[in-house]
Amino acid sequence: LNAQTLIARRRDGLGHTRDEIAWLVRGATDGGLPDYQLAAWLMAAYLNPLSPEETAWLTLEMAASGRRIELDGLPKPWVDKHSTGGVGDKTTIVLLPLLAACGLTMVKMSGRGLGITGGTIDKLESVPGFRLDLSPEEMKAQAERIGLALTGQTPALAPADKTLYALRDATATVDSIPLIVSSILSKKIAGGAETVVLDVKAGSGAFMPTAEAAEKLAGALVATGQLAGLRVEAAITDMSQPLGRAIGNALEVEEARDLLRGKATGATTARLRELCLHLAGLTLWACGNASSTETGRETAERALASGAAAERARLWFEAQGADFEVRLPQAPVRREILAEVDGWIGEIDARAVGESAVRLGAGRASKEDAVDPRVGLEIHAPVGARVRRGEPLATIHAASHSAAEETAALLAKSIAVKDGPVREVPVVLLSPVPA
Amino acid sequence: LNAQTLIARRRDGLGHTRDEIAWLVRGATDGGLPDYQLAAWLMAAYLNPLSPEETAWLTLEMAASGRRIELDGLPKPWVDKHSTGGVGDKTTIVLLPLLAACGLTMVKMSGRGLGITGGTIDKLESVPGFRLDLSPEEMKAQAERIGLALTGQTPALAPADKTLYALRDATATVDSIPLIVSSILSKKIAGGAETVVLDVKAGSGAFMPTAEAAEKLAGALVATGQLAGLRVEAAITDMSQPLGRAIGNALEVEEARDLLRGKATGATTARLRELCLHLAGLTLWACGNASSTETGRETAERALASGAAAERARLWFEAQGADFEVRLPQAPVRREILAEVDGWIGEIDARAVGESAVRLGAGRASKEDAVDPRVGLEIHAPVGARVRRGEPLATIHAASHSAAEETAALLAKSIAVKDGPVREVPVVLLSPVPA
Repeated sequence: LNAQTLIARRRDGLGHTRDEIAWLVRGATDGGLPDYQLAAWLMAAYLNPLSPEETAWLTLEMAASGRRIELDGLPKPWVDKHSTGGVGDKTTIVLLPLLAACGLTMVKMSGRGLGITGGTIDKLESVPGFRLDLSPEEMKAQAERIGLALTGQTPALAPADKTLYALRDATATVDSIPLIVSSILSKKIAGGAETVVLDVKAGSGAFMPTAEAAEKLAGALVATGQLAGLRVEAAITDMSQPLGRAIGNALEVEEARDLLRGKATGATTARLRELCLHLAGLTLWACGNASSTETGRETAERALASGAAAERARLWFEAQGADFEVRLPQAPVRREILAEVDGWIGEIDARAVGESAVRLGAGRASKEDAVDPRVGLEIHAPVGARVRRGEPLATIHAASHSAAEETAALLAKSIAVKDGPVREVPVVLLSPVPA
Repeated sequence: LNAQTLIARRRDGLGHTRDEIAWLVRGATDGGLPDYQLAAWLMAAYLNPLSPEETAWLTLEMAASGRRIELDGLPKPWVDKHSTGGVGDKTTIVLLPLLAACGLTMVKMSGRGLGITGGTIDKLESVPGFRLDLSPEEMKAQAERIGLALTGQTPALAPADKTLYALRDATATVDSIPLIVSSILSKKIAGGAETVVLDVKAGSGAFMPTAEAAEKLAGALVATGQLAGLRVEAAITDMSQPLGRAIGNALEVEEARDLLRGKATGATTARLRELCLHLAGLTLWACGNASSTETGRETAERALASGAAAERARLWFEAQGADFEVRLPQAPVRREILAEVDGWIGEIDARAVGESAVRLGAGRASKEDAVDPRVGLEIHAPVGARVRRGEPLATIHAASHSAAEETAALLAKSIAVKDGPVREVPVVLLSPVPA
């Protein structure tokens, strides 16, 4: 095997053997293959995409390129949940304690945000004391004790993916379905999961702009998962408008906390609640803990209503060094956006809202940026809601008056009020139906 | 401008502006663009080839990335000659003094050989004392004095091409016509040429296996040259059998010397002579020093016959520290291959002969290898020649008896003797016809 031959095969659209993929991943892991050869291969793989088999091999070899979190001895099933990312997506913070309260073992690695896509690690870092650097051993011990654990990504897991992802980011080769799929699933396998439930977002605030594109990605994730020995279920969900009420780190933790405590009353949080219950039902069914997604959903509703989910969240925060009831950091300036006319919400452009949040400091434009945990936005009425002149549409939480004013001007353009009724957008667009 | 956007444009088959190409070349020259981004761009450019305009811009920007040999004050036209490389191609060593004797100013940079393709620098290094590290100033001064100068490639000229070529070599992106064209022509422009005559080889011993493929490359060279302000003329010539009698460094200098002295008698050297006279005629016509290729050729024939070309070669060798009459290094072992039957030469596979020469030590398998100046092969009868049993077909010049025996076995398989007449292969396959 040599690098030029391997690159030439990809370049010419010829297939790779498993040995070739393994050799490539080994070279990416131990530095035996220089960056420029990996980059050329990645561009060739972007333009001549990997087959499903090749994608599964790449997934398995990347998963095996570092340590694996060993969950032996923990109650099965071992489940992970993954979202392809969007604006206001705090689902993980709700689902982890909710599903643990329903009897699943939830062990999860999360990432940081980039651009308009938020990251669970940034969100939880806004909670004073929350530790997000658990070792594999700490993860396992905590999951054994309370059924769930969450940590930031460790270079010890799937290091080949880390190398390849950094190169993809620098070489305009991120948007390749087989490369996306293998990156996502390799980390899930290395993280110990056997079943993975995927929330594939579609819309202006998501990586995939349309439901059709999201379905294609979801199909590839499910098929590759199958070839790699992983049970994968995927739902396509709406990201044309932000998810839930809050966008911004502490604000999103606050909303998740409200939902877990049963204090979620607004019309925007209702959509978040709907998504969480849907994904919980899907997960319980996929794990064999419910005979259908509906009965799974009922189990999850009971865990919310009984306070079992909130109790599990309390244990979780405590286990990772924080207090579930802690006062979260707050921005010094608040500014409301009011409806200027009576009407119906016609559009809340998720991308534009996400960009406003980044400008406020809630997200990062480039990887080196810091985020301000306090700032962000609240959206009070979803698309389709009836609003009257003078009612608040959104609240800006800013570090300064000038930032608030700048955002107010941007945001007013992202929320359209129509003079006739507008259809509500379901939060779940497509979901697997149990046979 | 940023690298990811530029790479994405190439990836998606969108065009570049001249500014974008200039930015890329600057990044390759000063190291501002990391190798992995250049490599991804090169693979994208391989799969979505540059347009003729983009190729001309890349050529001009690479030519401008370093110093340029300034020939101001030297008699015009300033001419360069380039071959795409083959087996036994010592044309440059003949043409430079021949054309200088016909009144042209010949200033040339040559390269080393790699694989079956020989390099003029390796060949002239077999001549004791021959200096091949002339500075741009020395080049100009010598050309002023005697009308010709030749040197090895200097990193000062077209450094961006050096960087990109090394990356192409490592990333399986060499075989792209626009990238080949810009690499060749950028060095010609940086070398001071205004007119370039190209010898594009076709056949098993060449980069382009067929005349059609060679024609495509030649067409791109001519078109890009035109866009870049360079007069380019290209002939397609045969490389299905080795060119001339000798393959191997000192042996090829010997053959070139024989031809210049008028002592070229063999049937294989006759093909080399024919090619040299054809290219000389084409060059003199392209430069406006002859009204047609035919009258140009006659001028060149007179320069050979009168001894003017040999005299110019004597001055050239002397100017660069060597003696035209010097005894060249000789291999200790000679071994002849004799015809085993009466017949006609049906094939002499240039690639196989080239590979035999590399194994003898005349060429290098990888860039780091050294070459043995003494060793190589002589081919005594070209394709189509009548041979009788016991007549010598080839002579092996080897460093040892075992190497000679090994080569004899290989070579016997590369030369086919047929029992019926075989058509001779013209050395010039296609050439521009003056309008």
